[in-house]
Amino acid sequence: MSVVTDQSTNAARFAAALDRADRVAAELRRTAAERDRANKPPRAEIELLRENDLLQVQEPVEYGGDGLNYAQASQITRRIARGDTSIAHLLGYHYAQTRIAHLFGTPEQADELSRRNAEQKLFWGGVQNPRGGSSLVLTRDGDGFRLNGRRSFASGASLGDYLSVTASYEGELVFISLPGGREGFKPLGDWDNIGQRLTDSGGVEFHDTRVERSEILGPDPITGRTLTPYQTLVTPHWQLAFVNFYIGTAEGALEEALDWTRRYAAPWETSGVERATDDPYILQTVGELQSEIRAAALLADRAGEALQAALDTGPSLTAEQRAEAAIAVYEAKYLTTKVSLAAASRLFEIQGARATTTAYGFDRHWRNLRTHTLHDPVAYKAREVGDWTLNRRAPQFSLYR
Amino acid sequence: MSVVTDQSTNAARFAAALDRADRVAAELRRTAAERDRANKPPRAEIELLRENDLLQVQEPVEYGGDGLNYAQASQITRRIARGDTSIAHLLGYHYAQTRIAHLFGTPEQADELSRRNAEQKLFWGGVQNPRGGSSLVLTRDGDGFRLNGRRSFASGASLGDYLSVTASYEGELVFISLPGGREGFKPLGDWDNIGQRLTDSGGVEFHDTRVERSEILGPDPITGRTLTPYQTLVTPHWQLAFVNFYIGTAEGALEEALDWTRRYAAPWETSGVERATDDPYILQTVGELQSEIRAAALLADRAGEALQAALDTGPSLTAEQRAEAAIAVYEAKYLTTKVSLAAASRLFEIQGARATTTAYGFDRHWRNLRTHTLHDPVAYKAREVGDWTLNRRAPQFSLYR
Amino acid sequence: MSVVTDQSTNAARFAAALDRADRVAAELRRTAAERDRANKPPRAEIELLRENDLLQVQEPVEYGGDGLNYAQASQITRRIARGDTSIAHLLGYHYAQTRIAHLFGTPEQADELSRRNAEQKLFWGGVQNPRGGSSLVLTRDGDGFRLNGRRSFASGASLGDYLSVTASYEGELVFISLPGGREGFKPLGDWDNIGQRLTDSGGVEFHDTRVERSEILGPDPITGRTLTPYQTLVTPHWQLAFVNFYIGTAEGALEEALDWTRRYAAPWETSGVERATDDPYILQTVGELQSEIRAAALLADRAGEALQAALDTGPSLTAEQRAEAAIAVYEAKYLTTKVSLAAASRLFEIQGARATTTAYGFDRHWRNLRTHTLHDPVAYKAREVGDWTLNRRAPQFSLYR
Amino acid sequence: MSVVTDQSTNAARFAAALDRADRVAAELRRTAAERDRANKPPRAEIELLRENDLLQVQEPVEYGGDGLNYAQASQITRRIARGDTSIAHLLGYHYAQTRIAHLFGTPEQADELSRRNAEQKLFWGGVQNPRGGSSLVLTRDGDGFRLNGRRSFASGASLGDYLSVTASYEGELVFISLPGGREGFKPLGDWDNIGQRLTDSGGVEFHDTRVERSEILGPDPITGRTLTPYQTLVTPHWQLAFVNFYIGTAEGALEEALDWTRRYAAPWETSGVERATDDPYILQTVGELQSEIRAAALLADRAGEALQAALDTGPSLTAEQRAEAAIAVYEAKYLTTKVSLAAASRLFEIQGARATTTAYGFDRHWRNLRTHTLHDPVAYKAREVGDWTLNRRAPQFSLYR
Repeated sequence: MSVVTDQSTNAARFAAALDRADRVAAELRRTAAERDRANKPPRAEIELLRENDLLQVQEPVEYGGDGLNYAQASQITRRIARGDTSIAHLLGYHYAQTRIAHLFGTPEQADELSRRNAEQKLFWGGVQNPRGGSSLVLTRDGDGFRLNGRRSFASGASLGDYLSVTASYEGELVFISLPGGREGFKPLGDWDNIGQRLTDSGGVEFHDTRVERSEILGPDPITGRTLTPYQTLVTPHWQLAFVNFYIGTAEGALEEALDWTRRYAAPWETSGVERATDDPYILQTVGELQSEIRAAALLADRAGEALQAALDTGPSLTAEQRAEAAIAVYEAKYLTTKVSLAAASRLFEIQGARATTTAYGFDRHWRNLRTHTLHDPVAYKAREVGDWTLNRRAPQFSLYR
Repeated sequence: MSVVTDQSTNAARFAAALDRADRVAAELRRTAAERDRANKPPRAEIELLRENDLLQVQEPVEYGGDGLNYAQASQITRRIARGDTSIAHLLGYHYAQTRIAHLFGTPEQADELSRRNAEQKLFWGGVQNPRGGSSLVLTRDGDGFRLNGRRSFASGASLGDYLSVTASYEGELVFISLPGGREGFKPLGDWDNIGQRLTDSGGVEFHDTRVERSEILGPDPITGRTLTPYQTLVTPHWQLAFVNFYIGTAEGALEEALDWTRRYAAPWETSGVERATDDPYILQTVGELQSEIRAAALLADRAGEALQAALDTGPSLTAEQRAEAAIAVYEAKYLTTKVSLAAASRLFEIQGARATTTAYGFDRHWRNLRTHTLHDPVAYKAREVGDWTLNRRAPQFSLYR
Repeated sequence: MSVVTDQSTNAARFAAALDRADRVAAELRRTAAERDRANKPPRAEIELLRENDLLQVQEPVEYGGDGLNYAQASQITRRIARGDTSIAHLLGYHYAQTRIAHLFGTPEQADELSRRNAEQKLFWGGVQNPRGGSSLVLTRDGDGFRLNGRRSFASGASLGDYLSVTASYEGELVFISLPGGREGFKPLGDWDNIGQRLTDSGGVEFHDTRVERSEILGPDPITGRTLTPYQTLVTPHWQLAFVNFYIGTAEGALEEALDWTRRYAAPWETSGVERATDDPYILQTVGELQSEIRAAALLADRAGEALQAALDTGPSLTAEQRAEAAIAVYEAKYLTTKVSLAAASRLFEIQGARATTTAYGFDRHWRNLRTHTLHDPVAYKAREVGDWTLNRRAPQFSLYR
Repeated sequence: MSVVTDQSTNAARFAAALDRADRVAAELRRTAAERDRANKPPRAEIELLRENDLLQVQEPVEYGGDGLNYAQASQITRRIARGDTSIAHLLGYHYAQTRIAHLFGTPEQADELSRRNAEQKLFWGGVQNPRGGSSLVLTRDGDGFRLNGRRSFASGASLGDYLSVTASYEGELVFISLPGGREGFKPLGDWDNIGQRLTDSGGVEFHDTRVERSEILGPDPITGRTLTPYQTLVTPHWQLAFVNFYIGTAEGALEEALDWTRRYAAPWETSGVERATDDPYILQTVGELQSEIRAAALLADRAGEALQAALDTGPSLTAEQRAEAAIAVYEAKYLTTKVSLAAASRLFEIQGARATTTAYGFDRHWRNLRTHTLHDPVAYKAREVGDWTLNRRAPQFSLYR
């Protein structure tokens, strides 16, 4: 009987978490256009996630979490994106980053961080993006270490209770879990982009910031490690988050546009119909977008299941299995990028000219998607899928693939 | 325990049927190009389906079938389409037509036909298509009836052991299950189209063909019936068959093209790579097509599940539930049409000029898809999806929606 | 010889005007992103057009204009759009509106307004848009008239030295040329949209505004007129302006993006190339966009020539000739809409993530195009082209077709 | 006055040639579907071109030609393609190949061949295609030469009065003008492809075929030459021919489909209209295709003008000017490929299911285009356009660019 109970408990907890996510999304949507214009750090939004117990859903039930797996957490990211793509971005990154200790840390490190995440409902920012010539270097300093350098695109770092940091130590990649606000850490506050404006994604600098050995994930020695296929699943974690906040954005934007259309849209003078909602071209466009968004969402679901299956396999995961999981995510990355961007632009054709009033802020969907879908060039994701499909050549691990 | 056993038996029977389908598909593919050119009635192909026990998969186990449901049968249609779209068309229609007695017939009629289907492995042709001004009229003649008129696009009718016929009786639509070859029935043998060449889809005529009361589906009286939402599921049956042979064709064509590319394709002179399989544009195209085909296939799966859920609900199905099921199928109809047609044309860009040799017959995929995707205009399917999504206006029943 | 001289003078004056336009466009581009954010009335921008003698280019040389025809003026609109789509919108509308007196006015009215336009370098705003239930009614009042009501989307009206107004008089459409700032005229200042922010396109109201008979275009009586095909060319004038500021925007955005890419773009980590400008996918995208934008620009040129040919035919223009000209413009409307919108979004894929910094303002191109391309639904323009092509059915005149 | 006369004569001769082309195209169209199925060598079709004086249009008037330039000849290719893409292919190649002597030959060679072309109305086949590992080697043999090897895709070679041959002589590329049917020349008759079936594009072999010095184009010595930018215009000649028979095919297919639609198409049951020609989706599709085909045709016109301007510049042409001309052609190559292929498939959506009857042969348009548009991968043409646009890097000369 206990198996059945656990089963139902997970399902019930998942359902409850989705409900909370839906409520939070609805609340975020109401003010999304306004907050997008205000462009302030998303402090209140993170508190909203915290108050609604959405930060610790992946942690064990016994610590105060919901025991959801990563695929389930990704569905929550998607729901939040229906209301606010920026906040879904922060949450999706947070979900990915709180899994890093489980991939790279010792069991003790992973357990300790899970416990804290759940008990304190910690929010994690990320300092990982290796683009733009940015670099962080870790060096030994007595019994501890020092961190120096800068990173760009550090989403949520200025507000993170904890930071997930990647750095170079003796030429090798290390993952660090660092409490926020440590001395020598300085967010640059330079994020002002056309989309994802509430993601607090400016650059950060570290100046001789102290790092303890225990904050560096993994056993001794720090160097000389070979990453296992299982550990390289870290990258598909982020990419699955992207997939979900792209498609969630499209779902939310469609819903919002239909709602508006039902209420405000006017029939075209030569349409021969009395209501815009009877216009043959509007109906066709709705049908096309609905079908495409749904299919992309199913591909996103499949990607989540594939990554979860790989995670469930555990450290014995083969390189081939890692490739299968990663490619499932990259297929979805390609398609959700294409479908959601197109939808965000075409939806205006359902609504008509008056939907361009700034107060509605309907352009934020395209701006949000256009901004984040450039994170890494989607042509290369299609190429990686093609290379696997045609040649069984697996994507070589990096923080992008 | 019995529930578990049935469950596993169904799964096992389904798996076995899929295996048989895969073998048949492989055999059909080997000769598909050649048979497409020969353009002969698909007699041998139907026998191949019969010998491999693919005709009676939906009939009860106790009668000799596999007890598969319609969603499962549709997956078999998809598999066959990977090898030969024409034969998948015949099989998909057959699966739909053998369900008609269960929707419109008395329990006795349905049971009797199921028994015969399974025992005799009957193949059903269809005489249903109401397009092109064609019409069939049923009139009373003593204790029986007479059928007169003509129909076009009567797939498999000349070869059917049984025919599923729609006719007009006193201005109302009736469904008739008629043994093939009855006096007065005349296939016109006029099918010569650019695609779906092996579907035997020419016109037919009936001249005073005798029909017994028992061959007209349903209880007395024949007239004055109101179709229930459950009965109107008949249309999504056909449409789901289309969906599956479209996407199965795309899956098979992709597999075939990749196979050919690995073996024969030459690198482009300015590509800077030594093998065509390393060309950046080829890899990108493969990745895009793979992602799009997969997503459309998932939407097709969802459509099957939605229709099956409606069928499982049974005669109490509400109009709203019928609409949900139909729309799920029509979403997939729109997308599989778009994706499979585009793939059938773009695949040549992976392969290059030499793939246009007639002997390969790779153009048959586009010809097959182009021909059948005109069955009913896909713009109206998008419109129906839009009308439901935007207005909750359900498609009005006809043999097309 | 005089013919040759005039010819060369026109060419020279046209070339000089294009040069001035290019310089103004360059100046506008430098500040376009900043001014887009500031969202102030485009007072200084209109002065810039005036100072550079771009307002009166269509007026006779003897009055101080350049004697350019409407097709030539449209090319100036296109050039300005390369720097600022909003200002090109204002200028394009201005060029169209200053032609109205020549279509609807008496020769004396047309001549007098041309003289004033040239001498005083007048800027015309428009109060024409019949959408959104807005309406303006003209009534007789003694020896003059009174204007009452409101209009939305009145581009440039608050800043116009003159206003081109459409109103209803005894149920018929009349065109009025009204000096700006007359008593009872009130711009609402309510324009705050996601694009075309500098077009001053808010609503306006008239309260008992006095209108003189001489300000109503056309001979007596005011009512009972039948519009000639020649007069109905008024609508293609506006539509040709749209076509040109759409494609000019795409041209300018492409140029801007390439410039940025050459300077700032970084190669992708797995591209195998050292400069972003060598990336195979970036090169392909540039080539595709360049080809599509060029073709759409050629179609826009053809549209200008077609409308000009109709104008040159003069009042004897047949309904068939009017249709040919209008359809040429609507073909270009469809294609420039599609091509420019797609380009404005895809250009980011050439540039990469850093191009999303707000300071660059590259998103304004999509916002500008997305906003104005909803002016009237482009599906209906495609439909009108189709109806003419298939059925020789001409678009029925309205202010939209 | 003489200038005016020449001018008008050229225009008049061009107009007359276009008229002849239109008549030939109409005649070819009537039997195109049937001849496509019969797949016989296009002997009668070449005679039709000859009888209608279409082979020598580019030759001087004094020799019996029309003195048309290459851009004008390309327009004739386009007209013929409206009736039969295969025959337009043969004619387009012929026009290109008869220009080779003017690029590579001595003035005497060029003049002599022009004279013969005009007097004897010679038809030229081509033995040029360097793909597929095929190769032809020329070696010295006494006072003459011997040709050995094979070539694939030798369009029109089996029927050519003359052959334009490329071969390798001491490792360098040479152009040879060879009378057809010389000893040792053997067409393989192995052309059976899905499209361009009447182009006689099978492989050929040469076994010790004698070649005279005078048949090798150019002055002594044969080796050690550096190609001038002017000579490398040879490649854009072929590519411009492609561009024109692609877009001509689309124009003809559209015309044919509209004609059929007006006569035979049936309205859809839920369209709410009485004639298919009133269907909103059909009208929209017609409008979209019409606009896209027209724009691509204008880009093809521009390509012709650009190549002609480069030819008119003559041997002093700079590398930069050559690049400008080539890129203009490649822009058109990209777009006509995309537009014509899409049109050939979408046209069926205007017509509906009955248009798939084999007797109409409407699928030949897609088959013809799909076959020839693989001649060289269009992605690389887009790339070359991009490389020029972004980097001013000119396409490096080969027989493909």
